[in-house]
Amino acid sequence: MARECKQKRPIPRRLKGFRDITSETVRARDTMIATIRGVYERYGYTALETPALEYVDVLGKFLPESEAPSGGIFALRDEDDEWIALRYDLTAPLSRFVAMNFQELPTPYRRYQVGPVYRLEKPGPGRFREFYQFDFDSVGTGSMLADAEVCMIMCDTLEALGVNRGDYIVKVNDRKVLNGVLEKVTAGGKLSSDISLQVLRTIDKLDRLGREGVEQLLGEGRLDESGAYVEGVGLQPEQISRVMAYLEIKADTRQTTCDRLSELVEGSKIGMEGVDELRQIDEALTAGGYGEDRVEIDPTVARGLDYYTGPVFEGVLTFDIVDDKGVTRQFGSVFGGGRYDDLVQRFTGQKVPATGASIGVDRLLSALLTLGKIDVDSTTAKVLVTRLDKKLTAEYQKIAGQLRDAGINTELYVGTQGIGKQFKYASDTGRIVAVVMGSDEMEKGEVSIKDLKLGEELSEEIGPDRKAWLKQQPAQFSVPRSDIVKAVQEVLARHA
Amino acid sequence: MARECKQKRPIPRRLKGFRDITSETVRARDTMIATIRGVYERYGYTALETPALEYVDVLGKFLPESEAPSGGIFALRDEDDEWIALRYDLTAPLSRFVAMNFQELPTPYRRYQVGPVYRLEKPGPGRFREFYQFDFDSVGTGSMLADAEVCMIMCDTLEALGVNRGDYIVKVNDRKVLNGVLEKVTAGGKLSSDISLQVLRTIDKLDRLGREGVEQLLGEGRLDESGAYVEGVGLQPEQISRVMAYLEIKADTRQTTCDRLSELVEGSKIGMEGVDELRQIDEALTAGGYGEDRVEIDPTVARGLDYYTGPVFEGVLTFDIVDDKGVTRQFGSVFGGGRYDDLVQRFTGQKVPATGASIGVDRLLSALLTLGKIDVDSTTAKVLVTRLDKKLTAEYQKIAGQLRDAGINTELYVGTQGIGKQFKYASDTGRIVAVVMGSDEMEKGEVSIKDLKLGEELSEEIGPDRKAWLKQQPAQFSVPRSDIVKAVQEVLARHA
Repeated sequence: MARECKQKRPIPRRLKGFRDITSETVRARDTMIATIRGVYERYGYTALETPALEYVDVLGKFLPESEAPSGGIFALRDEDDEWIALRYDLTAPLSRFVAMNFQELPTPYRRYQVGPVYRLEKPGPGRFREFYQFDFDSVGTGSMLADAEVCMIMCDTLEALGVNRGDYIVKVNDRKVLNGVLEKVTAGGKLSSDISLQVLRTIDKLDRLGREGVEQLLGEGRLDESGAYVEGVGLQPEQISRVMAYLEIKADTRQTTCDRLSELVEGSKIGMEGVDELRQIDEALTAGGYGEDRVEIDPTVARGLDYYTGPVFEGVLTFDIVDDKGVTRQFGSVFGGGRYDDLVQRFTGQKVPATGASIGVDRLLSALLTLGKIDVDSTTAKVLVTRLDKKLTAEYQKIAGQLRDAGINTELYVGTQGIGKQFKYASDTGRIVAVVMGSDEMEKGEVSIKDLKLGEELSEEIGPDRKAWLKQQPAQFSVPRSDIVKAVQEVLARHA
Repeated sequence: MARECKQKRPIPRRLKGFRDITSETVRARDTMIATIRGVYERYGYTALETPALEYVDVLGKFLPESEAPSGGIFALRDEDDEWIALRYDLTAPLSRFVAMNFQELPTPYRRYQVGPVYRLEKPGPGRFREFYQFDFDSVGTGSMLADAEVCMIMCDTLEALGVNRGDYIVKVNDRKVLNGVLEKVTAGGKLSSDISLQVLRTIDKLDRLGREGVEQLLGEGRLDESGAYVEGVGLQPEQISRVMAYLEIKADTRQTTCDRLSELVEGSKIGMEGVDELRQIDEALTAGGYGEDRVEIDPTVARGLDYYTGPVFEGVLTFDIVDDKGVTRQFGSVFGGGRYDDLVQRFTGQKVPATGASIGVDRLLSALLTLGKIDVDSTTAKVLVTRLDKKLTAEYQKIAGQLRDAGINTELYVGTQGIGKQFKYASDTGRIVAVVMGSDEMEKGEVSIKDLKLGEELSEEIGPDRKAWLKQQPAQFSVPRSDIVKAVQEVLARHA
């Protein structure tokens, strides 16, 4: 019987690729999100929140020619036997929302949305199946001014978060230019859209695979690190060398890069349109004071998503980190986006141009933590009122209430352990002050204030000046109960 | 061909029971959540965020004697063919988290968590399948001080949100008292736990069904409003009358109610334990200054969840509203909770007492909106810089940048329409100021400031004083470009 009970006990386990996020990270992320929201609102974007679940056909995630949802999403059947799934990004739900409400929405409709998205992909270090995105989009305008604004907001956001100019770069390219290049590569012919997308995705791997790797993948294929053979796109050698030449076209200025791109795609209508878009973005950026040190045109940026139709953007952190394998490299991409003029049209048939970008919240947070740009304090109440003598609980409650009324976050110990364990609890949870009062003190109308941080510091190795200072500070002292607020504030100020 | 394309177009639709939440509600909710978080942190609770998805056995939601998940949750099979589901509350995930990390966590572990939960229940007006909860819990202490603190935090939270004392009441009861009553009802015998739970759930319906309805449901059953027959619990008439007598036992003070309960359950060990717990809570509340006007002991509170083991809590808003059917009634419950000493034990076998409560965020928000206690402005940027002459866009960008640098949220019109549509856009999106500049003005170094709100007000019926004031204010005026920040600030201040 006992054994059977035991077998029935569930194992406390979490899903693969998911996280429990504890206090300091939740608080740091909240702070970061508030700053980002401030920038988006500075430009006039307003909030929207769509559900976590959507119909699979709304997400556009049915397998081709099939009734089954594609891999990569968490899908289930609802009570009417229809396929529904957790959103894998915030753009597909936005398009659905706009399509449903197009008549009532202002044009352009400019919204931001922050929240978790879900991907049923192989988890790995830093790759989770539930992660936060923070998007902003302008829907209903084809003006390149909107695309330029996306770049400006990327810059402003990173700087508002404390990333120094020079430690990031926003890269812009245009899918139409890429299509123009592909047209030229095939000498006026056309690659199938499937092959085109494969070329784009291969280009996107330049950072990771290097020139040689990309060359191999554009052709026959290559052996990857694990020794597995990855099949290539199958372009001809001459086609490959044209693509590779394109990838090296970037010049020192946006304008020169545009000039070179213009030469390269001359004769391709779509290619020239793309260059013209990039020129308009350059112009608006220059007018806004966003120079080459902040935004560059980079022909190697492709962005893997198939729905982009024009400009694409990427915000990259350029400072070095040492990765899991001990290799020093750039921190990399934290922001991505582009223009997607066809996503609403999917539903309505009506052309609704749109552009925007998405922050990878978790990656950006990890960057800010690396840079020391964000507070990581997990403790909300720096003061613990202990319960030395449980019979005096009513008095301890009054003390805690008095401190809270003075605006000091204060925890009253509500556990059942003795005073020694209470001090350990205080120190384990990062408190600065412990308030202690025995029945003797109570009769004298006094309380003891214990400076927990000072105690710790006194036992650590520190410079002589600080040490001398510390010695003059009493680590524990008594004050009249009427002075408790002032006394606690003074100790907190010591360590502020 | 055209027709086939049309058929393939997905319909833009949202799942039944789910919502798109637009700007003013998102912003109001964010404000409310920040205030609530402030109160929880005032008492020393820290943040936690668990995933939206959990294993079904972790949630405890398998059907009895079955491998299939029970109804009421959104469940699917993962790639290993295990059942996983969206969380239906934040308590089950907390228990899983504590069970996984018990050795490392401080005791008591006190955390708050806010986020959406998911229930596959019949949607209705105000009943959604995705809704927010905001929980706080103390895990690892059996002290009634922790339960009393839950009540105090409920009061503090409602008052911090602007709910007046007298417009709410926190109700406390104890499951052990209820069990004692059931023991007495059966004259020392025992009801099956299934029948006991049915009695509790029936008691919980007192507000909705009234005395007579509850009496019928405790017995044979009753016809509900739709004419359907609902089977009853099947108690004997004498048992029913004892339960009904219990439901009327509440006195004017917590102490007298405890005395009466004590008489009623005398001889039942569990019942007397429950009364003792209520007395301890009363004592702590009194010491903390939380009188009968804020927290009462109410024997009719049962709370439907089966995992509560001791004190149960309910925060009720007592002001009147007119409901969907035109009936005036109390707003009702917005907060609920209780002690659940067995939830972690489910996993570990080790007893880990715990208590806490949960705010129904959406219901509370709706109450605050009804009371006018929260700002419902959906507009983030009060200023729109129009583009009268698109050739001057670089100048418009500079003006927008100047205003933003001065800390004024400002949207630059990035659409493609003419100036008339731009003014309509400004008014549709709730702007106060439109900035306009033509080429003539530009040459003179001037810009026009249009006070959109003033224009609207002038055309409305208003008191003579306000009207006289309005007439002295220019609804549109020119200023030198160097004065633009000051001029815009002045117009914004008119309407602050």
